[in-house]
Amino acid sequence: MVIPSEDQHMSEYIAACDERRAYISGFNGSAGTVIVTLKDAFLFTDGRYFLQAEKQLDSNWTLMKSGLPDVPTWQEFLSKNLEKHSRIGIDPTLITAADAESLETSLKAKESHLVSLTDNLVDFIWEDRPPRPANKVFPLDVKYSGESHQDKLKRLREELNKKPYKAMVVNMLDEVAWLFNLRGSDIDFNPVFFAYAVVTHDNSLLFVNTSQVDDVVRTHLGDPVQIKPYDEFFPYLRGLGGEVDLSDELQVLVGDKCNLAIVEAIGRERITILRSPIADFKAIKNETEIEGFRQCHIRDGAALTRYFAWLEEQLNSGTQLNESQAADKLEEFRSELDLFRGLSFTTISSTGPNGAVIHYSPDPADCSIIQKEQIYLCDSGAQFLDGTTDVTRTWHFGNPTDEEKRAFTRVLQGHIAIDTAIFPNGTTGYIIDSWARRPLWEDGLDYRHGTGHGVGHFLNVHEGPQGIGVRIAYNSTALKSGMTVSNEPGYYADGRFGIRIENIVIVRDAQTPNNFGNKGYLKFEHVTLSPIHKKLIDASLLTAAERSWLDAYHAEVLDKVSPLLKNDTRALAWLERECSPL
Amino acid sequence: MVIPSEDQHMSEYIAACDERRAYISGFNGSAGTVIVTLKDAFLFTDGRYFLQAEKQLDSNWTLMKSGLPDVPTWQEFLSKNLEKHSRIGIDPTLITAADAESLETSLKAKESHLVSLTDNLVDFIWEDRPPRPANKVFPLDVKYSGESHQDKLKRLREELNKKPYKAMVVNMLDEVAWLFNLRGSDIDFNPVFFAYAVVTHDNSLLFVNTSQVDDVVRTHLGDPVQIKPYDEFFPYLRGLGGEVDLSDELQVLVGDKCNLAIVEAIGRERITILRSPIADFKAIKNETEIEGFRQCHIRDGAALTRYFAWLEEQLNSGTQLNESQAADKLEEFRSELDLFRGLSFTTISSTGPNGAVIHYSPDPADCSIIQKEQIYLCDSGAQFLDGTTDVTRTWHFGNPTDEEKRAFTRVLQGHIAIDTAIFPNGTTGYIIDSWARRPLWEDGLDYRHGTGHGVGHFLNVHEGPQGIGVRIAYNSTALKSGMTVSNEPGYYADGRFGIRIENIVIVRDAQTPNNFGNKGYLKFEHVTLSPIHKKLIDASLLTAAERSWLDAYHAEVLDKVSPLLKNDTRALAWLERECSPL
Repeated sequence: MVIPSEDQHMSEYIAACDERRAYISGFNGSAGTVIVTLKDAFLFTDGRYFLQAEKQLDSNWTLMKSGLPDVPTWQEFLSKNLEKHSRIGIDPTLITAADAESLETSLKAKESHLVSLTDNLVDFIWEDRPPRPANKVFPLDVKYSGESHQDKLKRLREELNKKPYKAMVVNMLDEVAWLFNLRGSDIDFNPVFFAYAVVTHDNSLLFVNTSQVDDVVRTHLGDPVQIKPYDEFFPYLRGLGGEVDLSDELQVLVGDKCNLAIVEAIGRERITILRSPIADFKAIKNETEIEGFRQCHIRDGAALTRYFAWLEEQLNSGTQLNESQAADKLEEFRSELDLFRGLSFTTISSTGPNGAVIHYSPDPADCSIIQKEQIYLCDSGAQFLDGTTDVTRTWHFGNPTDEEKRAFTRVLQGHIAIDTAIFPNGTTGYIIDSWARRPLWEDGLDYRHGTGHGVGHFLNVHEGPQGIGVRIAYNSTALKSGMTVSNEPGYYADGRFGIRIENIVIVRDAQTPNNFGNKGYLKFEHVTLSPIHKKLIDASLLTAAERSWLDAYHAEVLDKVSPLLKNDTRALAWLERECSPL
Repeated sequence: MVIPSEDQHMSEYIAACDERRAYISGFNGSAGTVIVTLKDAFLFTDGRYFLQAEKQLDSNWTLMKSGLPDVPTWQEFLSKNLEKHSRIGIDPTLITAADAESLETSLKAKESHLVSLTDNLVDFIWEDRPPRPANKVFPLDVKYSGESHQDKLKRLREELNKKPYKAMVVNMLDEVAWLFNLRGSDIDFNPVFFAYAVVTHDNSLLFVNTSQVDDVVRTHLGDPVQIKPYDEFFPYLRGLGGEVDLSDELQVLVGDKCNLAIVEAIGRERITILRSPIADFKAIKNETEIEGFRQCHIRDGAALTRYFAWLEEQLNSGTQLNESQAADKLEEFRSELDLFRGLSFTTISSTGPNGAVIHYSPDPADCSIIQKEQIYLCDSGAQFLDGTTDVTRTWHFGNPTDEEKRAFTRVLQGHIAIDTAIFPNGTTGYIIDSWARRPLWEDGLDYRHGTGHGVGHFLNVHEGPQGIGVRIAYNSTALKSGMTVSNEPGYYADGRFGIRIENIVIVRDAQTPNNFGNKGYLKFEHVTLSPIHKKLIDASLLTAAERSWLDAYHAEVLDKVSPLLKNDTRALAWLERECSPL
């Protein structure tokens, strides 16, 4: 799945945030900011969503196309376009403390100020808002997580001792879930639950709606973890702030994505904001998680094979299928797999021009019929107890044009450049991003999204802090052995077609003939197993090494996936054909 | 020539700075900082100079190896290792205002302060210091510069009008030389002269030792440029500061490499510090300068050919030649070339282990005999009226080992990766640096210097702001059509050998089949013409495209350089052999 242009700062509220934005504006993309003034209403979103937002916004709204020349960011807009002495209401649970701080600084020029609201104004007018989900929380067995929550808490406390800090406040939902080896289903696609946690040297407190927690969870957590009602979190923080003794320099540690409300509750001067050590722990998968990634991708590959073989047959026989119906079929195949726990995001099933809408998702009530003579782009993924998948394949079931083949081949060359990368420890995804673009640039082509995002282990399909892309933030996190990341270069011809080839890769130690600088060198191991469409390849562009890579990859796919296809002869025949040497 | 690890902030004083450092410490490398406390003396330098500094420093000195883990920068050292309330004397002409500002900030923790000295303390004790050079200044004809100084001043004033600024103060010697189309010889290898300039909307003032300026220069400059004595510069600035009216927000513009003394003379609140617009103008060569670069590199290629052919013959016949004697011969060949105006830096002529000392220069009184059975690395360049050259070639006149061939081939592949790069406008040298390293990383190899530096036009061989490298500063300057940059990946096996392959390339518009994003795409045109040693290539590692590149390059070298070798049959035969297809 393509990486968003902004961090999902606040995964705990991202869903709520999206819902509110969609409610007030009509735009339901996954990234955007709404500014409502006394006279006007503005929606800021990025290149992935220009087309979608133009369709969905009515005349009350002005679309602000972030990233285009002369279009301010929403922060610049507040500090430059609003009148002097503006008071700007903001929900402090929906902005990071860091962003609020830099925004306050830029507002100084106009002597304007942010005002933290106790209640979100959208909620005031949203009468029939559905209640917040409160689904059962469940433990993730250590046979899947690879490390007990007791050991994770021990590692975190060692981190607290370094300074020492009095406590760490954990507000990212995936960090809470990872830390306690718990999962939930409060947010679509992300197996997390609404919660906060506070870890001190002696105590671990989990703030969660107690109706979501049963005895199985209590037994799993054990006595040392105290379960507290969700609503007691902010009152507790205010008490914690009172406990912190400023004289001995003890501070409360919070991650750099903590929201403004947490900072205001504890008191800014009692807080140290840092990269979350839990995010850094979580990013590096242990050997159990890595093996889980491998295994769930083999199963996922079987479902993909069954789906693409089925789809080809449908189109060849002239069946009229729309994009959403096709996506449902893919979900059906996936749902039959062992350890399946739902999709990891809305399937992008797109024909022709829809493939160029980078974050397209077909509306079941109004989407296109898949055309045999158009490129079909499918970006999809699933949650399994042993891992998370995210894979994009691009097909042409008719006769592709030379332009389509050339662009596809350039994307493939970029994909191979990342897959075969070897680089020293200390290298960031920012540094190697251009390796994926080089073959496209050669033809004057490019893509307006990142090359890869981190992937959670049975957690959010997008997770930080690592990634491969042009965002300078990626230059702050070196790729390390055990990290997962997607490899998904693409090319999009507006109004005509989209191409993307995406595998998940795991960073591993590389065995190089030398070890200059004693840094140790790293490589990627791909775990995604689905054929790459040979019909779309212009073989004359490939080097001998690229051609060998493709044939070896296909042999591996066939070898690992075919044993799972014994009961589907159509799929097996299709896989054998697609995996034959180029 | 390899790029230094720090900017040469103050080219006007870099020579004086180096001399003072060498005088006080004994270390004569081109980069380093000295800190002398009441008890101790420290020299901070980077990886290129660890070996050299260890040799040259005596027991009074502690070598601080910048870049190694746990070794502070000299700035960190001042703010962390010195006692509280330290007063740190500093020569304000030898530190940029920006560096002084950030240093002051970091010193706050210890309540320490910088103190600007009127006299440099080294000068107090340096009794027999040679006088500052004051050589004749001369005009550079517009047939070489391609743009009159009147037109350059006009462009600069258009820039001043944008804000508007009251004036610009120019303190970089190469910017003064470029702006007025003047050259000098006050600093070895850099055809500049000691001067400052101030440009207002109505006046252009050139502060220069008037004994260096004759009527030819006065006629060239014309009446609108006022020549003022060098020593009147700081008094003039103090008056200029008084003229600036703070109420109407008029400010004096100074480049971001301006020194602290200038800021103190005008007054910090009357100054705007920005990237120098002159540096940005100068970085983009006009078509006359570009053609000059091409032409001088053809001539330079002829001298290189004559030299390498001669050297090979000497070694084959058993002549004992030391590195310095060989370098002198190269200078002799160069000095016979049209428009030659001296070397552009000290020739690096190094055999075996000396090649691994990245900034090695042979001491005529004590250097090694060139060994036929060792790798020989030669990095050299010249100043011509029509351009500046800088080229590195690596040879083996005996039988190279497999290790040497493999490493050389990896360096060559990195060199080709840059030479053949195509990238959209907006791309920086920081982004493409890793393209040069990828083939080396594959073998677990790397090099501890940048891949390329900007090159002046009959000016400093290192010039900013562009460059290709891992310094984050390079990420602030997009590569633009007309910029010159070196392409010089390398590999260094400490104590054994060094490899580097360096060409100068010019950024040019590329004709790509598409133009995604309407950005326009760029490529490099190489101007350096000297064969790349086939004997050191392991052809089995090359792709078909790399092999074709090499053969095409050699055909181009032979075609362009051989017409200049009519009187040197040895050189012509050698060139024909070295340029034959792989």
